Amino acid sequence: MPTDFAAHIADLRNLGGQRVWSLMISLFGDLAQAEGDMIDGPVLSAIMNTLQVKPEAVRVALHRLRNDGWIVSQKSGRISRHSLTEKGRRESAAASPRIYAGPASHSEDWQVVLLRDTPADTLAEMETRGYVSLFPRVLFGPVSATAPPDAMVLTGDTIPAWVRDQAAPDTLRGSYAALHRSLADLSGALPPAPDLSAVEIAVLRCLIVHNWRRLVLKHPPLPRALVSDDWPGHRCHLLVVDLLDRFPRPELTKIELHQAA
Amino acid sequence: MPTDFAAHIADLRNLGGQRVWSLMISLFGDLAQAEGDMIDGPVLSAIMNTLQVKPEAVRVALHRLRNDGWIVSQKSGRISRHSLTEKGRRESAAASPRIYAGPASHSEDWQVVLLRDTPADTLAEMETRGYVSLFPRVLFGPVSATAPPDAMVLTGDTIPAWVRDQAAPDTLRGSYAALHRSLADLSGALPPAPDLSAVEIAVLRCLIVHNWRRLVLKHPPLPRALVSDDWPGHRCHLLVVDLLDRFPRPELTKIELHQAA
Repeated sequence: MPTDFAAHIADLRNLGGQRVWSLMISLFGDLAQAEGDMIDGPVLSAIMNTLQVKPEAVRVALHRLRNDGWIVSQKSGRISRHSLTEKGRRESAAASPRIYAGPASHSEDWQVVLLRDTPADTLAEMETRGYVSLFPRVLFGPVSATAPPDAMVLTGDTIPAWVRDQAAPDTLRGSYAALHRSLADLSGALPPAPDLSAVEIAVLRCLIVHNWRRLVLKHPPLPRALVSDDWPGHRCHLLVVDLLDRFPRPELTKIELHQAA
Repeated sequence: MPTDFAAHIADLRNLGGQRVWSLMISLFGDLAQAEGDMIDGPVLSAIMNTLQVKPEAVRVALHRLRNDGWIVSQKSGRISRHSLTEKGRRESAAASPRIYAGPASHSEDWQVVLLRDTPADTLAEMETRGYVSLFPRVLFGPVSATAPPDAMVLTGDTIPAWVRDQAAPDTLRGSYAALHRSLADLSGALPPAPDLSAVEIAVLRCLIVHNWRRLVLKHPPLPRALVSDDWPGHRCHLLVVDLLDRFPRPELTKIELHQAA
């Protein structure tokens, strides 16, 4: 491994959330989510080695993921081949829209909805439609999202800054800011994609997806109109989308060929 | 006094709020609010007699109102003449807009305002501009009423019934309903204004104003758009406006002439 690459990814590796089994869920979700996708043992070893995870830790994590029904391993001659189980694919697919979605248009139409009361199931249902709570009984969401029949539906022209500040998941501000710094440094320092090996790109993507999903899945999605342009989570989002676009997912067969060479 | 008239006003007299000094404030506010207006002792006696208040109670109330700086009495030959003090006129004038205002148009434009925070002085200030609280930090008011600069201003097309129900001062529902019953009966039973004496009209107006102000001044004014057509307070309002219009305030000099005759 080139020392340069190890230096590039050092920050992302050190951001926390380095439980190996969790890293491997990010890896399989990004690299091998489709039915039939498998990662050969030697490829997995090369990736985890680049991530500076020791072989023993990989074995322990694989054991745990098999026990939890996330991953299944098959022998094929002298090598093992690892793939997501149906449950693993289902869970990965459920999280993927949040993880890989680009930021919506800033100018999407929104509405504010006053609720008659707030039974927990109404709130949960509203959240799945894209609403977030501003105050008790006051929700904000896209105009396209149906409101309960007895809600008072309101619209407006401008959103004051304090409304955006209040809607932001403020406890994650520091974590998003740290991730943004790492991604910004990385974005400036990385060579063009063709100068990286397939394993390095797999590692790079794994670390980006892993650190991003650890934060973005901790809070409900915010309507774009409620997100300040300078919210660290939004600035992360732009860099994540850009980096995953600049360094496209390598084909599994290509990694295998590369390893076999 | 014709027995008929005593029967007409019996309900209103019995609704409560019959403290004599308070009745007299209603009377002076309705009949003699302008600077220089005076009510002669014999006229006051005739009115209070029609209200079935005993002379001794009138004397006690006058004494109290003079002591409190509401009313001043002057001797003019053998009779006393009573008038509001400057303070009494000021207080009457402050309450008159609420008491005598007609109901606003149902279709007046409204807005909902979300406040960044709610210091007590902001809320008080908003109330004087015609806003009422729907929820904490959520106010409803006319579009013409300026919102604080950092408020989120929202508009809508329809107001659900529960919003009106919630805004109504529900503890006064029963009192408004009782007053409405009395006013509705009265409205149907009263003869045309020319068939009543000036004293009777003064008494009638005094009782209407008195019972109305006792309720309407107990809660902040509601924007018309927030008032259901079937809210008893609104139905009272329509009858109060109609009755005061049908039985116009008699001129003080006319009452005096009538008494002197």
